[in-house]
Amino acid sequence: MNEKISQWVLTDTERNIWVETLELGAAELGIAAPARISKRVLHGGLQEGVELVEVDNGALSFSILPTRGMGLWRGSYRGEFIGWRSPVRGPVHPQFVHANERGGLGWLQGFDECIVRCGLESNGAPGVDILPGNTGEPMPVQLGLHGRIANLPAHYVAVEVGREAQPVLRVRGVVDEAALFLPQLRLTSCISTVLGSNALLITDEIENRKPVPAEMQLLYHCNFGAPFMDAGARLLLPRTTTAPRDATAAAGLTQWDTYREPTPGYIEQVYFHRPHSAPDGSTMALLHNAAGTRGVALRYNTRQLPCFTQWKQGGSLGEGYVTGLEPATNYPNQRATERRHGRVVTLQPGEIYRVELKMEVLLSAAEVHAAGREVAALQAGVTPQVSRLPLPDFS
Amino acid sequence: MNEKISQWVLTDTERNIWVETLELGAAELGIAAPARISKRVLHGGLQEGVELVEVDNGALSFSILPTRGMGLWRGSYRGEFIGWRSPVRGPVHPQFVHANERGGLGWLQGFDECIVRCGLESNGAPGVDILPGNTGEPMPVQLGLHGRIANLPAHYVAVEVGREAQPVLRVRGVVDEAALFLPQLRLTSCISTVLGSNALLITDEIENRKPVPAEMQLLYHCNFGAPFMDAGARLLLPRTTTAPRDATAAAGLTQWDTYREPTPGYIEQVYFHRPHSAPDGSTMALLHNAAGTRGVALRYNTRQLPCFTQWKQGGSLGEGYVTGLEPATNYPNQRATERRHGRVVTLQPGEIYRVELKMEVLLSAAEVHAAGREVAALQAGVTPQVSRLPLPDFS
Amino acid sequence: MNEKISQWVLTDTERNIWVETLELGAAELGIAAPARISKRVLHGGLQEGVELVEVDNGALSFSILPTRGMGLWRGSYRGEFIGWRSPVRGPVHPQFVHANERGGLGWLQGFDECIVRCGLESNGAPGVDILPGNTGEPMPVQLGLHGRIANLPAHYVAVEVGREAQPVLRVRGVVDEAALFLPQLRLTSCISTVLGSNALLITDEIENRKPVPAEMQLLYHCNFGAPFMDAGARLLLPRTTTAPRDATAAAGLTQWDTYREPTPGYIEQVYFHRPHSAPDGSTMALLHNAAGTRGVALRYNTRQLPCFTQWKQGGSLGEGYVTGLEPATNYPNQRATERRHGRVVTLQPGEIYRVELKMEVLLSAAEVHAAGREVAALQAGVTPQVSRLPLPDFS
Repeated sequence: MNEKISQWVLTDTERNIWVETLELGAAELGIAAPARISKRVLHGGLQEGVELVEVDNGALSFSILPTRGMGLWRGSYRGEFIGWRSPVRGPVHPQFVHANERGGLGWLQGFDECIVRCGLESNGAPGVDILPGNTGEPMPVQLGLHGRIANLPAHYVAVEVGREAQPVLRVRGVVDEAALFLPQLRLTSCISTVLGSNALLITDEIENRKPVPAEMQLLYHCNFGAPFMDAGARLLLPRTTTAPRDATAAAGLTQWDTYREPTPGYIEQVYFHRPHSAPDGSTMALLHNAAGTRGVALRYNTRQLPCFTQWKQGGSLGEGYVTGLEPATNYPNQRATERRHGRVVTLQPGEIYRVELKMEVLLSAAEVHAAGREVAALQAGVTPQVSRLPLPDFS
Repeated sequence: MNEKISQWVLTDTERNIWVETLELGAAELGIAAPARISKRVLHGGLQEGVELVEVDNGALSFSILPTRGMGLWRGSYRGEFIGWRSPVRGPVHPQFVHANERGGLGWLQGFDECIVRCGLESNGAPGVDILPGNTGEPMPVQLGLHGRIANLPAHYVAVEVGREAQPVLRVRGVVDEAALFLPQLRLTSCISTVLGSNALLITDEIENRKPVPAEMQLLYHCNFGAPFMDAGARLLLPRTTTAPRDATAAAGLTQWDTYREPTPGYIEQVYFHRPHSAPDGSTMALLHNAAGTRGVALRYNTRQLPCFTQWKQGGSLGEGYVTGLEPATNYPNQRATERRHGRVVTLQPGEIYRVELKMEVLLSAAEVHAAGREVAALQAGVTPQVSRLPLPDFS
Repeated sequence: MNEKISQWVLTDTERNIWVETLELGAAELGIAAPARISKRVLHGGLQEGVELVEVDNGALSFSILPTRGMGLWRGSYRGEFIGWRSPVRGPVHPQFVHANERGGLGWLQGFDECIVRCGLESNGAPGVDILPGNTGEPMPVQLGLHGRIANLPAHYVAVEVGREAQPVLRVRGVVDEAALFLPQLRLTSCISTVLGSNALLITDEIENRKPVPAEMQLLYHCNFGAPFMDAGARLLLPRTTTAPRDATAAAGLTQWDTYREPTPGYIEQVYFHRPHSAPDGSTMALLHNAAGTRGVALRYNTRQLPCFTQWKQGGSLGEGYVTGLEPATNYPNQRATERRHGRVVTLQPGEIYRVELKMEVLLSAAEVHAAGREVAALQAGVTPQVSRLPLPDFS
C-alpha cells in the first residue's frame, strides 16, 4: 500500500526554519475525523520559551516538548488525565534548570513530565565518574541526576500525517547531546498515534556520531498518578527477579506491587526488576487502579531495554503522588556502578540503538483484565525470585 | 467602606495568560490624578527577557521585576533616585546567573536591585549544609549565596487599583520555590502604594505547601546609595545589641552608624543588630544623608523579622557605594550556623509566614527629624549593648 | 581627509534601544558597490535567542555574535568557508552553557566559533584559584575553562559605515564582565573590514573599571578547518621557542607544524610558542593548505599578545578537524600557573589594554607564497629553540 504523507517542518536550524505557531485541524490534515496538531510557545514563569506540540487523535491527546528533549509532557484519553502533578509548575524551560545544584539533584527543578528520557551519556544517581578530558587523560567528572537530554532542545522538529486506511499522526524531533571532546550522541525520535486509538508509540534512535566507541545510557521515566494510581492500585509485570534498592524499599517489599492512598511525607521506595519476556524479547508492564477499571500499559522489548525500575512516590497529591515505570538499558545507579555491572551500552562509531516503547490507555474492566491476562501469560512457568535485601548485582 | 478594585492579570501560567505590554494611565486606572502602571519586557544584554512592571503614584515611582522573584529594582521620588548603581548592568535575567559559580557567590552576577529577597529555603553565606535527598538520607548540599528566590520568575502577576478615598496601586505576584523532594515554598507578594504618597508597602506571605515541616529563611536586602548615603550619612535604629561580624567590621565599630565618602577598594563592613521594638513588635530603621535632608525609613515588625543586618559597602561610585539595610528572620551566616542558633524558621504544613515591610522616602529636614525622633522614642530607656568583638551568638 | 560615518545603534540597554531586525544594502550604506550589513535573532534548538550580525564587504563576509561576547562565528571569502565544523550545532545561546559542568569543561557546550575570546578575568584549563571573596579574605574558587566573556551578551551594539576613499564596514560592541566584589572588566570591540578586501580587523579594548588593580587574561581562540587545514597543511610562525604542552604533544613534536588527514579518535596536541617579532612587536602566523593555494594569516603584536598557543585537533570532520591559532597574553594553563610565571596581566584602575588582531584570507599560491616570505623575513637570523619535552617555564 502506498502511504501518503504530509509534513510540516516546524524547526530546522540548519535551514533557518522556525514556525512559532501552527494550528492544523482535520481539514488541514486531510482527515475526515476529528484530529488536531498544533504548536505554540509558552510564556510566563518557568515555562517561558517552552515549545509545545499538541497532538489529538480524536480520543487520545498528548503534548510533546521539543525544548525539553522531545519529552512527553501530559496526555488525556477520553477525559482522563495522563501524567502527574509535580510540585514544580512546568513545563520548565532548561534556562531555569541547574543540574549541578542541590548536590547534583538540580534536574528535579525541571521534572514534571509524564515520559521523560534520562540519558544519553549517563543517567541515574548523581556521582563522580572518571572520564577522559580534552587531553585524553582521565579526569573526575561530577555527573548530575539523569543526564542532559531532557534539558536540551531539538534542532529539528516536524509534524506529519500519514493517510493510510488508518491515518497516523506523528511528531518527529532530533536532539544532539554533543560537544567537542564529549560524546556526540543524537536522539532521533518519532512519537506517533493512530487516529482514534488509545495508544502512542515512541520510536527512538540513538546514534553515536563520533568515530570512536561511546558509552550510552537510556531510561524512560514514565510517570503516572491518579486516576491510574490510587489506594489499592497494582503494578503487574512479568519478571524473573525483583529486589529492593535499599532498606526503605526492603521494608515495603511485601507490598511492592500495590499502592497506598496519598501519604504525606512518604519516602520513595524503589524496586529493581529483571523483566521476563516472550522469546522475541517483547514484554509489558501494567499499572491499574484498585477497581481494575483504569490502566496504563507499557509495551517494550527487553533486548532494547533489559532493566526495569519501579519508583513508588506515594506522597500527598501536592508533593508528588506518582509511580515511575522505568524501562531502561540499566538501573539508575551511579554510572560507575552500572559500568561495573556491565549495564552501560557501548555504541560503535555510527552505530544506532533503536528503541520502541508503546503506551496504551485502558478505560474499562475488560481492557484491564485482558492486559492482566497478557502479563500472566508472559509470566507463566516462571517463578520470580524476590530478594528480601538489596542485591549486590543490582545496587 | 466598600472598596472598588479593578485588576489586570498580566501572567497566569495556569490559565495561559500572558500580557507582554500594558500601559495604564490615570484614565484607564479611573483616577483623577497623575498615575501610571505599565508592563514591558526588556531586551538586549543581560536584561534580555526581563519583565518590568512600573508603578507611578504621581510622586513616587518604582519598578517591580516578576522575572526576578518580584524584586524591587529601583524607584524615584520627586526626582530623587532610590536604589544604587551596581557594577552589573541590570536588571539581570536569571538565565545569566549561575549561583554555583565563583565559590557559591554567583548570585552576585544578578545583584543590582534596591530591594531583593534572600531565601526562601536558605539565605546567607554559601556553604555546605546537610539536607535530606530523594532517598530520605542526609546528603551534603552546597548552598549558594542568598538562595534561589531572586532568580525565579513569578507564574502569576497582576496589577490593580483600589479606588477608595485614597486610591491604591498594587502589584501582585506569586513565585514558587519548589521541586520534587525539595521544599515547596510559595511567595505571594503584594507591593502597594497610596496615590501621591511617599511610601510603598511590601506584604509577603510565604507558605509551606508540603505536608511536612519545612525550614524557611527570609531576608530583605534593601540597598541605598546616593543621595541617601553620602559622607556623613547616618543609620539610626532602635536596638538592644550591636556586634561586628568580623575583624574588619570590629575595626570600624566606633563609626558603625556613619558613612564615609566613596572609598576606592573599600572592604565591606557588616554589623549584626538585635532591633528593639515597641511592645507590639513594630520598629524602624532610618538612613539619612549628612545634611539630614534626605532619608529613607524602613518600618517592619520584629515578630516577623527579628534580626537586622547592616551592610556597609563604601566603595567608589562605580564599584558599589551602597548600604544594605536587612531586616530578616536570621543573620546571613551559613544556614547550618543559623540553625544551630535557632534562627531558621520552621513552617508547619500549610503554615503561612506573613511579613510587612514599608519603605518611606523623606525629602525634608522636618521629615527626617521627625523620623529620627521616632527612633529615639523607640530606643528610650534601653541602652544598647555594643560588642567590640564578634559575638558567638551572632557569628 | 574628512571621514563620513553613518551609524545604526542596534542595542543600547542604557537607552532601551533594541533593534531586532536590520537589513542594510549598498543603497542604505551609501556605497556604490555590493555590500551588506544585517542583524537578526536566531530561533530553534541551541541557537534560540542568539543575535547575529552579518557583514559582507562584497568579497569577504562574516558574522558576529553579540550574544556570545562579540565572537566571530564564521566567515566566507569568495566562496571559501572560514571556520570549522564543531560537534555542537551552534551558535549556542549562553542559556544552554553550564561552565561548571563536566569537570569545568562546560564551556565546550557552546564552542563552535571561528574566533572566540577566552577571558577576561581568566582563561585556560579549569582549576581552583585562590581569590578574594566579599569579605576580602581569600577563598578557593573553581574557575571554568576559558572564562566567562564568550557567554556574556553585549549591552551595546552598533554597526557603521565609514565612507572614505575605501569604505569601511564596522561592528561595535561593549560587553561587561562585572559584578559586585568581582572584577569589573569591560570589553569594547570593533570588528571592521574594508570594502572588497580579504581582511578583517579586530580592535579590542579591555578596561579595568574598578578603582583597584585587576588581573586580566585574554586569548584569541582562532579556529580553522578545511579548506585551510588539510593533509599536509602547514603552520608558519616566527618564533624563538617551541615546546610541547605534554607527552602527547612531545610524541608528535617533529611534525608540530604540519597537519594530517582527518584521523578518527585523534587526541589533541598542543604546542606553546614564544613568537618572534619585528622590533615594533608586529608579527604574524600563517596557516596554509598542502597545495599552498589557500591560507589564512593572523597579524598581531607581541607587545599586546606575547604568547602563542597552537592547538592541533585533527579528528574526523564530524568530531572536530580544526587547528586553533591562539595569540594571547598567556598560555592556557590554569591561572594559578600563569600567575606564578608572571603571565597574568595586571590592569591599574581605569587602565585600558588594547589589542589589534587582523585576519587575512589568501586564495592564491602567490598570496600564500608572499605571506610565507614575510614569515621567513621575520624569522631571519633567529634559530628557534625547540624543546623535546614540556618546558617548566611554559607548562
